[in-house]
Amino acid sequence: MRALVYHGPGLKALEERPQPQLTQTGDALVRVTRTTLCGTDLHILQGDVATCLPGTILGHEGVGVVESVGSGVSRFHKGDRVLISCISACGRCPACRRGMYSHCATGGWILGNTIDGTQADWVRIPHADTSLYPIPEGSDEDALVMLSDILPTGFECGVLNGRVQPGSSVAIVGAGPIGLATLLTAQLYSPAQIILIDLDEHRLAIGKRFGATHTVHSGAGDAAAQVLALTNGQGVDTAIEAVGIAATFELCQNIVAAGGFIANIGVHGHPVELHLERLWSQNLTITTRLVDTVSTPLLLKTVLSGRIDATQLITHHFKLDQILEAYDTFARAADTKALKVIVTT
Amino acid sequence: MRALVYHGPGLKALEERPQPQLTQTGDALVRVTRTTLCGTDLHILQGDVATCLPGTILGHEGVGVVESVGSGVSRFHKGDRVLISCISACGRCPACRRGMYSHCATGGWILGNTIDGTQADWVRIPHADTSLYPIPEGSDEDALVMLSDILPTGFECGVLNGRVQPGSSVAIVGAGPIGLATLLTAQLYSPAQIILIDLDEHRLAIGKRFGATHTVHSGAGDAAAQVLALTNGQGVDTAIEAVGIAATFELCQNIVAAGGFIANIGVHGHPVELHLERLWSQNLTITTRLVDTVSTPLLLKTVLSGRIDATQLITHHFKLDQILEAYDTFARAADTKALKVIVTT
Repeated sequence: MRALVYHGPGLKALEERPQPQLTQTGDALVRVTRTTLCGTDLHILQGDVATCLPGTILGHEGVGVVESVGSGVSRFHKGDRVLISCISACGRCPACRRGMYSHCATGGWILGNTIDGTQADWVRIPHADTSLYPIPEGSDEDALVMLSDILPTGFECGVLNGRVQPGSSVAIVGAGPIGLATLLTAQLYSPAQIILIDLDEHRLAIGKRFGATHTVHSGAGDAAAQVLALTNGQGVDTAIEAVGIAATFELCQNIVAAGGFIANIGVHGHPVELHLERLWSQNLTITTRLVDTVSTPLLLKTVLSGRIDATQLITHHFKLDQILEAYDTFARAADTKALKVIVTT
Repeated sequence: MRALVYHGPGLKALEERPQPQLTQTGDALVRVTRTTLCGTDLHILQGDVATCLPGTILGHEGVGVVESVGSGVSRFHKGDRVLISCISACGRCPACRRGMYSHCATGGWILGNTIDGTQADWVRIPHADTSLYPIPEGSDEDALVMLSDILPTGFECGVLNGRVQPGSSVAIVGAGPIGLATLLTAQLYSPAQIILIDLDEHRLAIGKRFGATHTVHSGAGDAAAQVLALTNGQGVDTAIEAVGIAATFELCQNIVAAGGFIANIGVHGHPVELHLERLWSQNLTITTRLVDTVSTPLLLKTVLSGRIDATQLITHHFKLDQILEAYDTFARAADTKALKVIVTT
């Protein structure tokens, strides 16, 4: 089969690999019909993800069709159309029993990381009963690919952890795909203000179309002052960090109101400074989270019902044979205006 | 009247001052019967609290008897015995309406900070209806002084923010008066483990008597390893920072389990390092809080019923005329073994 294989920092290739086999009784073999690329795949290619070894097939998002299942799988059968979750969950370990699937003892984010992923014709999915979701025949598969990772990540790590509420004020720092997915899902809770902050005018314009009530260009260095001006000098109830660098986490600390929430989504490579010398008394809640995908069933209904138009996040389509071009387009997003790119097998 | 007056960094004096007068309709004039000293008073004397100007009478804790009230006060009358809260709250501003009294627009922590405090024969209490609590005739006033600040601080900033639960594991970093108050109130939620961590063997021994299930001496530099050994390598569900320096906040980051809580109580003077490079994916909640004293009525019932013996926190008694000696004893706690000292007028 065809597969996009990681070969160490800076190195990847589309090559022929043997079709995966069922190895555990809980496994399903899934024929991938659509997949996509994630910023995390680019991190792997930069050598930032030590757990991902050379030789691994990348990709942790996708939809497909079940080809075969192990003897322990009861919820899926050959021919079922399925959404593949970026998080594999056994459903039985202590972490899973409390809904923290991201820290499953034998799962978590393993697809396209510690085991072969979805950027291929076929993929083996462990713990299939609790890591796949049935999708209706005839549904828009492009939209559903957004449910593998990006929508639950924005929703759980940003919106739920940030306790977005009706009437509240929200700032989303970073208008990349994750920031925009957060923007779409934040509207489920009807906040009064959603202020989108980024350096890229094009992405801010998209954010405006997606429902941001205000946009702030952070290039002039006065982003915090602009947010304070928009919130009567109080700051926002919820500041969502959707970039993963020190400067954006710092900005969140400068714009959050007393009693507010800073919800970190970004994948950070370095420590950040936490200003406890002034924040110790500010009644703040700061959260971190690797997406658990506990909200996937809820979001699936939300997307299928049309309440969220997830296809807005998709800018480009490629065939699997063109996946190197897809990577190039995705990596040069500032030029290509790429958000999410769909790769069809 | 007699009053302990702050005269700038390092300077204080017990001196004669005029008896305070009612200035607002919501004020009460209270004759102080007992007060105490707080680590924050020492911070003021070190010049760390810029809002407290020379000439201010210190103290934000105490019990007393109402002498007179303004025309706007309806819940208190001359002769009522009252607990004085360290937080003054108007009860009407947006912060108060959501229970965040610490950020009251015209209150918060003002007593012994921006207005004259309780280390005197008399004190003016603004917003009396919502800043005083009635106490029964004949109750143990020594114990009730612990409800002005230390017990609600440990309970709200540590136990409630840290979501201590039945069966959970808790580490309290710092066995000073606040850490010990946290230890006493944490037991209201019946955690399975309470691990107390400090450099002072004497305070650890007190903690053991107060109900810590384990104590860890942090002098050898292996406190984190000891806590991990006590928690099957997982870390604690709740790590409570009750010191206010970078090293103890760092320790909390090293001992908290995935999905856990770091509840900061400590008053910090400097930024700290937050290790988002490894914590971004750990599903943590980090909280800060200036005590709101919303839990004071609950804790008052808990202390009056004998469920918590707050007198355990009291090591020394002084008369107001001896308050300079009380300060000396409190400041040299490592030698004097002082926890809380009661000052009686």
